[in-house]
Amino acid sequence: MSVSIPPPKCLKKPLTVPHRLMFGPGPSNVPARILQAGANPVIGHMHEETFEIMSDIKSGIQYMFQTRNIMTLAVSGTGHTAMECAIFNAVEAGESVLTAVNGIWGERAAEMITQPNLLRELPKLPNCPVVFFLAHGESSTGVLHPLDGIGELCHKYDCLFLVDSVASIGGVPLYMDEQGIDILYTGSQKVLNAPPGTAPISFSERACQKIFHRKTKPISFFLDLNWLANYWGCDGKPSRIYHHTGPVNAFYSLRESLAILAEESLENSWKRHEKVAEYFQAGLESMGLKLFVKERKARLPTVTTIVAPHGYNWKEITNYIMKTHNIEISGGLGPSIGLVLRVGLMGCNSSKTNVDKVLAALKDALKHCHKSKV
Amino acid sequence: MSVSIPPPKCLKKPLTVPHRLMFGPGPSNVPARILQAGANPVIGHMHEETFEIMSDIKSGIQYMFQTRNIMTLAVSGTGHTAMECAIFNAVEAGESVLTAVNGIWGERAAEMITQPNLLRELPKLPNCPVVFFLAHGESSTGVLHPLDGIGELCHKYDCLFLVDSVASIGGVPLYMDEQGIDILYTGSQKVLNAPPGTAPISFSERACQKIFHRKTKPISFFLDLNWLANYWGCDGKPSRIYHHTGPVNAFYSLRESLAILAEESLENSWKRHEKVAEYFQAGLESMGLKLFVKERKARLPTVTTIVAPHGYNWKEITNYIMKTHNIEISGGLGPSIGLVLRVGLMGCNSSKTNVDKVLAALKDALKHCHKSKV
Repeated sequence: MSVSIPPPKCLKKPLTVPHRLMFGPGPSNVPARILQAGANPVIGHMHEETFEIMSDIKSGIQYMFQTRNIMTLAVSGTGHTAMECAIFNAVEAGESVLTAVNGIWGERAAEMITQPNLLRELPKLPNCPVVFFLAHGESSTGVLHPLDGIGELCHKYDCLFLVDSVASIGGVPLYMDEQGIDILYTGSQKVLNAPPGTAPISFSERACQKIFHRKTKPISFFLDLNWLANYWGCDGKPSRIYHHTGPVNAFYSLRESLAILAEESLENSWKRHEKVAEYFQAGLESMGLKLFVKERKARLPTVTTIVAPHGYNWKEITNYIMKTHNIEISGGLGPSIGLVLRVGLMGCNSSKTNVDKVLAALKDALKHCHKSKV
Repeated sequence: MSVSIPPPKCLKKPLTVPHRLMFGPGPSNVPARILQAGANPVIGHMHEETFEIMSDIKSGIQYMFQTRNIMTLAVSGTGHTAMECAIFNAVEAGESVLTAVNGIWGERAAEMITQPNLLRELPKLPNCPVVFFLAHGESSTGVLHPLDGIGELCHKYDCLFLVDSVASIGGVPLYMDEQGIDILYTGSQKVLNAPPGTAPISFSERACQKIFHRKTKPISFFLDLNWLANYWGCDGKPSRIYHHTGPVNAFYSLRESLAILAEESLENSWKRHEKVAEYFQAGLESMGLKLFVKERKARLPTVTTIVAPHGYNWKEITNYIMKTHNIEISGGLGPSIGLVLRVGLMGCNSSKTNVDKVLAALKDALKHCHKSKV
């Protein structure tokens, strides 16, 4: 045998990556400090220094989530991996799950839950759900869903309260313990401003009780909480057993992003996101644009949905803004496709200066893009 | 409600990561060029430039794997994620899988396959396996398993040939197409010298035929090849639908590492690893140490297993070498725990200079570590 496929020519061209203002619903821009943290040398996924970094990450997540849960860690993957980690561990075949579908994330959770291996054993009569899923910040519709009281209600029926806070946490108040949330997760690439690839997650004592008393093993070995808990030093055992090779560089960046959040403080970050969102909404309205979410309190301060301007092709607007202003804003997703423009200003991107840039770009786009005469 | 968990003090300490010679079985050292590629600014996971980078990665993997498979991509996760991606897609509930257990990787594959949701529907009588799993380079035992002829045999019985080449590929000849391998995967952190977090994988036409004619959806949404194929532009469809947020920075590093391999060429990389391994083996034997794998041809050139020196505590040796020489070498894993020392010299780490460093460190350790009088 011999090498018959030659080295590809395309790899001879050096990698070039443009600088771009990332004002879509994520990933956000990553500050140089976080990028450089990620460029530190690789050490072992089982080295003491790595365990210390993981321990710092754990503390940072506990702060961000406002939780004392011991079972707090970061999954080696994106928000979807965390979503599967939550569902695969908390739900056994034959159990049912209730999902609030207020946008695409609820739809995706429903899709994951009804993958055939879970669904096919569901009894024909609905039984009491063991998990209730809710997206706190629905980045597809721009809706911020209230959380108060839901945890209590769930617990009354012996149901776990699972919250997706990928697009919201850090930018809006959330108190995992006080709000009775049993499983909470987010991604690294939104308010945290780290590169995509890690996903903080936390499990309450109540969730652990269910998970560690399962009758069957979870479907995924990679996402099995028994293993993850040991790797993250959450199970109280004296030694850690090799599970998978943690993405150490992604851990460096994640730690740095949590450090930045701790420096600013949650309260200041929440206030800043709120003020910037209000400033943005006022600017949009003064331009004659309409907000997709009518109720002020129900607006997600991190991702703003704007009703797609009448008579325009939304795709032409986002393309124009990318080409002319080097700014990413996006169209709808899932149920909001064609209906909205979405602008995400998260973490370090949430500033009045950036709002001014987006408003100027939008004004310019509305002037230059084709408008039908309807 | 109010913030009751204060910002953690540990995050006030700046991140410090030591430089270390990573001569264990992985992760390997990552050259500055690859680390800096990963520190490029974040762009969107659905931007044209990202798709181009992904296309370059695809070509690089096709070269590394020596395959023309269209269904070639990188999973957003580590080697274990790729392992689950292969199994979850290729195997349906009720089907059986044959696993060659020649070390820990075969054991892990067996564990994944027998997760209850697949196992509980297995008929009592064994049926013909639909997949045969083999670890090409068993990094736990240091064994390189021959591949020739196995693919043909599998295909005779309508069985897919699934090969784990995490620890071997790039360092030893492997021809996916010519050797009739149906599913092949590796990790980014071994011979490729990229940070851990991405896992190249490829599926033959035969594998795709089975996967895309499944009766049920795969267990994992995140690893569903229908979705991954679309995100990686492998399904011939004109547009890509949002699946998950690809770890773009990890893609940058992976592309750079594939470019470096293409620059050196596979043949030169194979030769270098072979020569360095021979030089290392000779050095070990001249020190009076014994190689764990007796048969010369069965030795993995990337990870060398040394019989744990008689009378010593292996852990004291690896600790001494780490502390005194700043070099990571490791003990056994799974079936080889307590029996061996493992030294990985992969990708840029595979050089005679590094062999000399390891040999000097080993000599020094045997002189200074405690030896019992047995």
